[in-house]
Amino acid sequence: MVNDRISSFEDLDPAYFDRGLYFGDGVYEVLRSYNGRIFALEEHTARFSASLAALGITGIDIRTVRERVERAFQAAGLPNAKIYFHVTRGSAPRNHTWDPNLKPNFFLTVSEVGDSSREKARGIAVCTRPDLRWKRCDIKSLNLLPNILARKEAVDRGCEEAILVDEAGFITEGAGSAFFAILKGALQTAPLSANILPSITRKFVVKAAQNVGMPIEECCLTPAQAAAADELFLAVTTKDIVPVVKFDDDVIGNGAPGRLTRALTTEFLKFTV
Amino acid sequence: MVNDRISSFEDLDPAYFDRGLYFGDGVYEVLRSYNGRIFALEEHTARFSASLAALGITGIDIRTVRERVERAFQAAGLPNAKIYFHVTRGSAPRNHTWDPNLKPNFFLTVSEVGDSSREKARGIAVCTRPDLRWKRCDIKSLNLLPNILARKEAVDRGCEEAILVDEAGFITEGAGSAFFAILKGALQTAPLSANILPSITRKFVVKAAQNVGMPIEECCLTPAQAAAADELFLAVTTKDIVPVVKFDDDVIGNGAPGRLTRALTTEFLKFTV
Repeated sequence: MVNDRISSFEDLDPAYFDRGLYFGDGVYEVLRSYNGRIFALEEHTARFSASLAALGITGIDIRTVRERVERAFQAAGLPNAKIYFHVTRGSAPRNHTWDPNLKPNFFLTVSEVGDSSREKARGIAVCTRPDLRWKRCDIKSLNLLPNILARKEAVDRGCEEAILVDEAGFITEGAGSAFFAILKGALQTAPLSANILPSITRKFVVKAAQNVGMPIEECCLTPAQAAAADELFLAVTTKDIVPVVKFDDDVIGNGAPGRLTRALTTEFLKFTV
Repeated sequence: MVNDRISSFEDLDPAYFDRGLYFGDGVYEVLRSYNGRIFALEEHTARFSASLAALGITGIDIRTVRERVERAFQAAGLPNAKIYFHVTRGSAPRNHTWDPNLKPNFFLTVSEVGDSSREKARGIAVCTRPDLRWKRCDIKSLNLLPNILARKEAVDRGCEEAILVDEAGFITEGAGSAFFAILKGALQTAPLSANILPSITRKFVVKAAQNVGMPIEECCLTPAQAAAADELFLAVTTKDIVPVVKFDDDVIGNGAPGRLTRALTTEFLKFTV
């Protein structure tokens, strides 16, 4: 029964009994292009392979995925595109266990990347929310309910992003972004663990910091430490570096994007040309 | 792009961009009927309302849901039916935030309930797995990846169910069931919390225990305590009470379903007629 219409199982599109829908049994990636070139395709496909392996989803070749991403991107003809794709374990009548020969489902969208120039020029406000997620956030899975609920709570408080804080009182990452602080000229971010997504943008931010000679400290920050930082920013595929100028009730620096954040952005954008 | 076929967004079935698929942004229920009568429909619809409210999904009336469940059940003509349904926040281009006026999607299946007579007669083997789930397992949401992965690990070890153990070392519940021990004539199960689904079958098991004069102790059990119990069983909608005769490497009782578990099953089945 779809809404109020009854039909036989055979007449339904397999999308209705996708294990991705029943269980969130799938993994995804988001990429973007800059001026007609897909950025960090190697890194995203490598992470995607790791996510597939973590869930034991087989039956889809990573070269096929890569070829489809490139073909869809070419077909869309958008120079600055946002490319989303997911692979789920497949469609089958609902059952916790699965047939190992189930054929995975692939789904991809290409759309124009949103304009983030205003956010980048002015900086954004963020607020802390409890990190309610599961214990394998290193897998980029379709189980994103805690992420969207935290984001919604942040938006309801007039913020652009939720910064997640674990039970021990440490910041893990944003609901849909990596989180960075700059203190006394050093870049600080949480070390990678099972509780944090290995962000591709984070990797390039670290590389940018190395290029400009900025020391990098992987450390767990408390909200109080973040609020006392000289500069804060987020890293996210679709917007690269987004300065944070308000953290809960605290204004960061002078309330405008910081000098070192701008320097990192300039360096980062060199990777994208 | 669906598998290797490119199409325009407008030509796709809205099922492909369901927020239930993108984020697991939806809630579900499973009911069953016994001999032509749906069991505990009131209780399931009440819990479903609570799940919808917890996620702030509006725009669907619970009376409509109830009417659809009854209509689909009648149309299927299966006396012993398993009824699954979910409501997601709706279909929209992928974005963490949502339009509050988004129209929810309703999906329901009716199928013959599986035969569990062999499991019930012989009892099943279970094994413990770490509870990796998020911190709001009281919401019956579509974020079920840790559940299916734990179940798979249990099946790979020759077991029927995974019994989840939290970081503090206490049993929460099964990957898809509630968990009970009987020790010195008393029924033991974990107290309800944000980490446990308020199981409808659990509620009727407790009622059955009261009816037969069995004391009920809500307490957090360790695996060692469970392994040392006189009897163990699971409670799950589709199978009501399933005796557990092996717990990790330990045989429970004499390796056959226990006397008090059988007494509770007899009492439970009185509710279903």
